[in-house]
Amino acid sequence: VHFGILERLNAGEIVIGDGGFVFALEKRGYVKAGPWTPEAAAEHPEAVRQLHREFLRAGSNVMQTFTFYASDDKLENRGNDVHFTGQQVNEAACDLARQVANEGDALVAGGVSQTPSYLSCKSEPEVKAIFKKQLDVFLKKNVDFLIAEYFEHVEEAEWAVQVLKATGKPVAATMCIGPMGDMHGVSPGECAVRLVKAGADIVGVNCHFDPMTCIRTVAIMKAAVEKAGLKAHYMAQPLAYHTPDCGCQGFIDLPEFPFALEPRVLTRWDMQQYAREAYEAGIRYIGGCCGFEPYHIRAVAEELASERGSLPEASQKHGMWGNALEMHTKPWVRARARRDYWEKIKPASGRPLCPSMSTPDGWGVTKGHPELMQQKEATSQEQLRPLFAKADAK
Amino acid sequence: VHFGILERLNAGEIVIGDGGFVFALEKRGYVKAGPWTPEAAAEHPEAVRQLHREFLRAGSNVMQTFTFYASDDKLENRGNDVHFTGQQVNEAACDLARQVANEGDALVAGGVSQTPSYLSCKSEPEVKAIFKKQLDVFLKKNVDFLIAEYFEHVEEAEWAVQVLKATGKPVAATMCIGPMGDMHGVSPGECAVRLVKAGADIVGVNCHFDPMTCIRTVAIMKAAVEKAGLKAHYMAQPLAYHTPDCGCQGFIDLPEFPFALEPRVLTRWDMQQYAREAYEAGIRYIGGCCGFEPYHIRAVAEELASERGSLPEASQKHGMWGNALEMHTKPWVRARARRDYWEKIKPASGRPLCPSMSTPDGWGVTKGHPELMQQKEATSQEQLRPLFAKADAK
Amino acid sequence: VHFGILERLNAGEIVIGDGGFVFALEKRGYVKAGPWTPEAAAEHPEAVRQLHREFLRAGSNVMQTFTFYASDDKLENRGNDVHFTGQQVNEAACDLARQVANEGDALVAGGVSQTPSYLSCKSEPEVKAIFKKQLDVFLKKNVDFLIAEYFEHVEEAEWAVQVLKATGKPVAATMCIGPMGDMHGVSPGECAVRLVKAGADIVGVNCHFDPMTCIRTVAIMKAAVEKAGLKAHYMAQPLAYHTPDCGCQGFIDLPEFPFALEPRVLTRWDMQQYAREAYEAGIRYIGGCCGFEPYHIRAVAEELASERGSLPEASQKHGMWGNALEMHTKPWVRARARRDYWEKIKPASGRPLCPSMSTPDGWGVTKGHPELMQQKEATSQEQLRPLFAKADAK
Amino acid sequence: VHFGILERLNAGEIVIGDGGFVFALEKRGYVKAGPWTPEAAAEHPEAVRQLHREFLRAGSNVMQTFTFYASDDKLENRGNDVHFTGQQVNEAACDLARQVANEGDALVAGGVSQTPSYLSCKSEPEVKAIFKKQLDVFLKKNVDFLIAEYFEHVEEAEWAVQVLKATGKPVAATMCIGPMGDMHGVSPGECAVRLVKAGADIVGVNCHFDPMTCIRTVAIMKAAVEKAGLKAHYMAQPLAYHTPDCGCQGFIDLPEFPFALEPRVLTRWDMQQYAREAYEAGIRYIGGCCGFEPYHIRAVAEELASERGSLPEASQKHGMWGNALEMHTKPWVRARARRDYWEKIKPASGRPLCPSMSTPDGWGVTKGHPELMQQKEATSQEQLRPLFAKADAK
Repeated sequence: VHFGILERLNAGEIVIGDGGFVFALEKRGYVKAGPWTPEAAAEHPEAVRQLHREFLRAGSNVMQTFTFYASDDKLENRGNDVHFTGQQVNEAACDLARQVANEGDALVAGGVSQTPSYLSCKSEPEVKAIFKKQLDVFLKKNVDFLIAEYFEHVEEAEWAVQVLKATGKPVAATMCIGPMGDMHGVSPGECAVRLVKAGADIVGVNCHFDPMTCIRTVAIMKAAVEKAGLKAHYMAQPLAYHTPDCGCQGFIDLPEFPFALEPRVLTRWDMQQYAREAYEAGIRYIGGCCGFEPYHIRAVAEELASERGSLPEASQKHGMWGNALEMHTKPWVRARARRDYWEKIKPASGRPLCPSMSTPDGWGVTKGHPELMQQKEATSQEQLRPLFAKADAK
Repeated sequence: VHFGILERLNAGEIVIGDGGFVFALEKRGYVKAGPWTPEAAAEHPEAVRQLHREFLRAGSNVMQTFTFYASDDKLENRGNDVHFTGQQVNEAACDLARQVANEGDALVAGGVSQTPSYLSCKSEPEVKAIFKKQLDVFLKKNVDFLIAEYFEHVEEAEWAVQVLKATGKPVAATMCIGPMGDMHGVSPGECAVRLVKAGADIVGVNCHFDPMTCIRTVAIMKAAVEKAGLKAHYMAQPLAYHTPDCGCQGFIDLPEFPFALEPRVLTRWDMQQYAREAYEAGIRYIGGCCGFEPYHIRAVAEELASERGSLPEASQKHGMWGNALEMHTKPWVRARARRDYWEKIKPASGRPLCPSMSTPDGWGVTKGHPELMQQKEATSQEQLRPLFAKADAK
Repeated sequence: VHFGILERLNAGEIVIGDGGFVFALEKRGYVKAGPWTPEAAAEHPEAVRQLHREFLRAGSNVMQTFTFYASDDKLENRGNDVHFTGQQVNEAACDLARQVANEGDALVAGGVSQTPSYLSCKSEPEVKAIFKKQLDVFLKKNVDFLIAEYFEHVEEAEWAVQVLKATGKPVAATMCIGPMGDMHGVSPGECAVRLVKAGADIVGVNCHFDPMTCIRTVAIMKAAVEKAGLKAHYMAQPLAYHTPDCGCQGFIDLPEFPFALEPRVLTRWDMQQYAREAYEAGIRYIGGCCGFEPYHIRAVAEELASERGSLPEASQKHGMWGNALEMHTKPWVRARARRDYWEKIKPASGRPLCPSMSTPDGWGVTKGHPELMQQKEATSQEQLRPLFAKADAK
Repeated sequence: VHFGILERLNAGEIVIGDGGFVFALEKRGYVKAGPWTPEAAAEHPEAVRQLHREFLRAGSNVMQTFTFYASDDKLENRGNDVHFTGQQVNEAACDLARQVANEGDALVAGGVSQTPSYLSCKSEPEVKAIFKKQLDVFLKKNVDFLIAEYFEHVEEAEWAVQVLKATGKPVAATMCIGPMGDMHGVSPGECAVRLVKAGADIVGVNCHFDPMTCIRTVAIMKAAVEKAGLKAHYMAQPLAYHTPDCGCQGFIDLPEFPFALEPRVLTRWDMQQYAREAYEAGIRYIGGCCGFEPYHIRAVAEELASERGSLPEASQKHGMWGNALEMHTKPWVRARARRDYWEKIKPASGRPLCPSMSTPDGWGVTKGHPELMQQKEATSQEQLRPLFAKADAK
């Protein structure tokens, strides 16, 4: 029997998402940083298929179609070096996801994300038509459920949910926001309530912030949804980068984005902590976004192995808590074959000429003052605006 | 016409190696950290093939067979969870390398590495027999040249070179040592001279240290070979991790090895600097080892594009020096679309609770004194021994 | 003509306070860390006099009597190694302050601080009697005005202000709190309003937090006082330590307190920034507390030299913005003789094995999560309590 | 009975030096950074006397006359804001040192340092005449012994020793060099041998490098002196700044010199480690230079209290290993009242936007490569020169 996403979540199961395709495939040579479009689904299917398979082996229960930024308006922006239509890209992506999902027991989720049309102030019907076009492919290919993800503006996310909901498929909706809310200053709580009211069965966040910040944001969402007397499931697909220093637009504003984020990558142990804290916060759909590699998802699956009742296939190639180091010839390396060692490690960067935090671009107000970053989160957008205005005026 | 490795190097061409398979495939879920054996060549050929292909697209001129630690004595140590014979693993690895090499214009190199037999004090004939067994497969599969790599003891490396040289194929030999020399205190210069005398056409280092340290070590080798009136080509396949803080055994001794090295990963810009400095130091075989992902090799190929006369295929998905950011919507991200920006970036770790350097394990002498690490390099092994003896005695 | 503190502030003048006596004299060998009592005023008057004089030369307009923790109940706690009565200590402190104040044009302020009596739940009359006893000395010695400083509980601060106000002298009141408020969760705004209502002419904060945090806190106070339709002058006497990582109790909870704070000491350039931002925030009484050395106060005076109309005497021994480096023999050191250089410097710690932030003790909730520190400031005490309870329960 | 310096050292006693007057008095407002001249001895004797007294209380056995850079040729360079002759300054300095020395059991040492005359290529007789002039004052004031300190060129140091030795007083000679030797590439070992042959009774280093580097350098000196069959006592007066990242000219070349060195200041616990390791290396004259405050010297005296048989007077105001924190009200602060806690602390900088190491100015070769700093120490000056030439040519 093949259970659907809501049956699983309603039964209290943990659902493990997959990791970030655009960043992983950029490093493998198939996605261009800048446009970030997914034409590789049609151009190099073997590369996309292999990545799906690695996430499946790592424990993912969902194969998300590689259709991020695959709306026609985005692909057109992309320039003339993409030789496939939006429909071809979206269809290829569905086929690849389904093919690998069938190698295991995974679901296929069709995904839409924010559109250039909304940002250029197109009308609601126009924006919805964009979503509708991708959706037609998803329905034709019969995906198991739908995800509206990576929205900075709750209004556009609501429109997407409305379109997706009309299909009758289960709908998840995640925004790429932090505790300060969306780009119009709508709080995470209000965003979540509006998305649930628009029809989302699962709400949460993806991308832009590190795991701990995302858990915090989803916790705010959950509290608001519950306070409003509504019901939903909760979902987090954060970055695999430590971002304690970013502002309300997340890692985009960090000076290292997107080509020098390496020192921020989470270890597998950081990921186990993420999985545990997400679980304890009541989040049951636990996945990843940019920066997540297959071993990060495996770490989530290993941390929750007892709750889920099994280890993923890829754990055959991994000793829990480093225990495969036990047979090392050097005694001091053998001494690392234990949980306590890896849980407590504070890994060095090997970069003594680099700082540990950055000042995000575009935030004149924070120049030289990490403590102001706290202030940003401490106060509402409204209170901050005059402060920014002053800073910008300098 | 398909030119051989020595014809290319003799003609003054740059040869770009590939990256590190064991670490990359560990993260993808196909190699177990600890034993680090390459049974995936037989178990999951599609995963190994895909990684070969990514390096080919990134600009690699050599497909190295995935036969690291594939000697029988190592695979037997490995325990009963490998269900293929050494011969099967080695043959599968050769087939995969050849298949992908033929998709481009790459050479296939068969590789052997240090053996448990040597470390357990087996005799010269016994150790040589181990190499011979892998070599039989390489000859049957007709690889283009041979690499003896990852040797900590020059004596074993000489034995390997002697066995490999007997085949008549070109031979490269790299040790996993730093400026302080091999584990018996033989200096890099003497190691190189002995390897050339043993028959190596190409000498250098691989693994254990970061790119800048490896360039330094190869420079010492080159000076010694030239001083001895000998002739060779030079090769470097370093880590993709910053390791300014490690001792004579390299990154193995760092507390983060092997599961918390993330903050040390080099950026693509670090790699361009590596490629340039390696080239300027007279190194013409420039590749990578543990930590190198396809985009790192692409960065090497992009830095040397004018010298090599072309960009690699994967550069179709990469704007040089970040220039694909030019069309970004935010002005401050567009401002990053320039060489000057990325060349100067000092990337933050996002880890304010972590230090920038570690104290290597197993070196009592260095406890709490980074400056002693310099001392290690400042003096010969002989001078240091009493110091270590004293430290160990504490 | 000798103008009083309020005449000066009412006229719009800047008043520069002095620095931290207990920490400075601890390093000079006259104060014991732990009890932190000021018996040196009687024991070693020459050392205390010299420090007063250095602050006077650096630009201080106020000589604060060295009577911190000089209440009888505190001195009694102190043990039997103090051989002077509270009255002797307080009188000696007044004499020293007056003597040096008369060498220039400085005012003398008599200071009281929080008492063990309050913390051990003594009654209002008992606590007030303690203050009264010190006050009798101040009146006898005819100090120019009074300061109630270093209060963690607004109630005790109110009592102190009431006692001080009864003398008819001008009264300043500063609490050692941050943006989260006092130890009972009373916000900085409410604290300030209550202190003004109790009779304080000048309100603000001292100690416990770094300059930028203190400015933020006083800004909150100022907004609340103005909103309440009240009138006051504002004052900041922060730490000279960077403390972006501390919780609501300030630097006491940092693991480095009090014997390893060195890497956190502000430079003179940091101090100029503090002076400028304090001034821009409307603070006119600008001084320092623990960690401030004479050159820190001089930096404040130099930054505000044009507003104040003069440089302090000690600037005869200081080139503004490093300009005395101009005659250095090395061209690269001469190149440092400019404002732009020192304003932008990001000074290295020379400690590659140390992190840049700490986890404060006593806050189970923050273990390993710098982002939770932001949360602490983001939410009210009430909201946090259940979170702490949970953390403590772990 | 008042014993002389050599009697003390010959008897195996530890002699504790004092700390750095120019840096300490710069912070107190009496010395101008840039010229660094000691006119304060005449201008503000009370300030200099107080600092002497603090070092005496902290355990110093030597009051060094505050005559650094007090040669006539330096004072003349100094410009017209010094209103005292060289003779007046030197005499005042001797009087202050003697006056405070007599308050305890300390010796007075007259000090000379390198001269502008040597750097501007004056002849040997001219340079020696400069030293002679200061010496006349020292003899008139009958100092107990003489120190030639802060020499970058061994030749000038030899000349100084020759002049000093002619007086018949005991002579100490320290150079401001590191393990790479003097500015002409003369190794520390050769420098020491030449100084002993010139007549120095005590040799070592002062200033320019951190304690651990200085111990290393003196250890090299000691080994060379012993190898040459000579006899001497050994002395170290290092910086109180961590400088793992500086080149052969020491902290002068660090970008933070001299106005942003705060984050590098050693803690008292670092100092105890310094004292112990200096003692174990056979150094018996253990003092400090720039950055040393009285509490740093006290830490040296406390670490060696059992070897010396007593604690210094200022330890009455200091609990060993933080034990005076025992009575603190907060349990987590009380938990810091133990040796183990402070010995292991890795103090944070509170500066997340700053790196842990700097790239010294004037060393084009090291731009961006901390590992090259190691190279500098790894090879002789001769080997490095072509490398620098190349770097400078870039």
